[in-house]
Amino acid sequence: MDSLSKNQIKFIKSLHQKKQRQEHQLFLIEGEKLVNEVLRDKPEIIEWLIIKKNYAFEKEISKPVYFIDDAVFASISTLSTPPPIMAVCKFLPHSTDLSINFNSTFSFYLDNINDPGNLGTIIRICDWFGISKIHCSPNTVELYNPKTIQASKGSFLRVNVIYIPFEKLNLSPQTIVYAADTKGTNIYQTSLKSGLIILGNEANGISPSLKNYVHQYLTIPKHPNSKAESLNVAMSAAIIASEFSRPFLL
Amino acid sequence: MDSLSKNQIKFIKSLHQKKQRQEHQLFLIEGEKLVNEVLRDKPEIIEWLIIKKNYAFEKEISKPVYFIDDAVFASISTLSTPPPIMAVCKFLPHSTDLSINFNSTFSFYLDNINDPGNLGTIIRICDWFGISKIHCSPNTVELYNPKTIQASKGSFLRVNVIYIPFEKLNLSPQTIVYAADTKGTNIYQTSLKSGLIILGNEANGISPSLKNYVHQYLTIPKHPNSKAESLNVAMSAAIIASEFSRPFLL
Repeated sequence: MDSLSKNQIKFIKSLHQKKQRQEHQLFLIEGEKLVNEVLRDKPEIIEWLIIKKNYAFEKEISKPVYFIDDAVFASISTLSTPPPIMAVCKFLPHSTDLSINFNSTFSFYLDNINDPGNLGTIIRICDWFGISKIHCSPNTVELYNPKTIQASKGSFLRVNVIYIPFEKLNLSPQTIVYAADTKGTNIYQTSLKSGLIILGNEANGISPSLKNYVHQYLTIPKHPNSKAESLNVAMSAAIIASEFSRPFLL
Repeated sequence: MDSLSKNQIKFIKSLHQKKQRQEHQLFLIEGEKLVNEVLRDKPEIIEWLIIKKNYAFEKEISKPVYFIDDAVFASISTLSTPPPIMAVCKFLPHSTDLSINFNSTFSFYLDNINDPGNLGTIIRICDWFGISKIHCSPNTVELYNPKTIQASKGSFLRVNVIYIPFEKLNLSPQTIVYAADTKGTNIYQTSLKSGLIILGNEANGISPSLKNYVHQYLTIPKHPNSKAESLNVAMSAAIIASEFSRPFLL
């Protein structure tokens, strides 16, 4: 049973940081379910498997496997309750196809989404509604942030996430650009056509520089008695995805 | 400028734990936005305000205010990036009214929801859609968990969360009981009437003991090409709330 050297432990801990992940093009996945999903669907990205000594792991795999003590595991895990298994993975291959396939429904452009949990949740929603590619502004939180990966569950394996300035998107002149905004038209009253939907930053909404591109703003109206200030961007994404998809799922 | 004693610091840290919160009927709120919202809408629950020394706080309030060093603040905060202000608050008054007011739409019963972020997010969704009261099974995660409060934003002030076994709900015989389940009927094809919707545990779904009460199971269908396994319970709650509300928001 191979253990990890001090340098390897240090290296894995360094992958908690974006700078190191980007430099080495490596990231961490944690937990049985996620590791099993990657082993099943994309084993080629796994570099090392790291497993707690007392954990019964019986798969035959052709990757380096390290067995370590609980205390060491806790020190390299990003989770407060460390799971029994994690893996160091290579970044997914970059997509060079910048076109947007609307899959007969829609796609999202994420404009400076800040919270990794929100990004991961939005990826999971896209996966559910059959959206296989989304685009993000370069200042959107990193796909390989451990919290993004955790919130996306296995969906980051199926939804292509491409970081690109909005101006560089290959949009056909026919593409309708929507944006979620509290001052938009009632989404339930709007005839929604296939198009690109911009979701803005959690605190500041859509960037001023993107406003010129927007054809129609959409809003999810609240109950007349509600005193809520806002709906979280991931929840908005879920409802918007549902509204754009429902004609096709009826 | 009052500082905190060692015993006070120890006490505040103890409120990170459910047992201590329940014993003292006190909990923590963190961050400028949340503290300001509580000061504005429910100042009577605030016991102490705790503020970083370098933070300009200029409100006049009749509560004990403590100014402390960043390092001490970091030690009592539950957040990895501690905000400049937090408060120790009293639990909200228990509601003794167990009836369910459907507000012409719906309400949720949360059956063993485990993740505090999910509970907080569901509370926020309810607030948006005008649901002023929800019920939870006694084994659902605690409302006063710091992650629940954080995810709910200020919505926990406006949505009454009542822990009660399902059998003890005051349901009229006319109440339709729905439950979210992957084997249910397509929610987009179902004529939804005002009723109570059970949302089950993240991993295990609805408890077997509640299945007898369910009149209709509802499912959010996925795109035919989707390989996603499941939709997170909070996202499902957002879409279900949207579907039940849309006839009233059209």
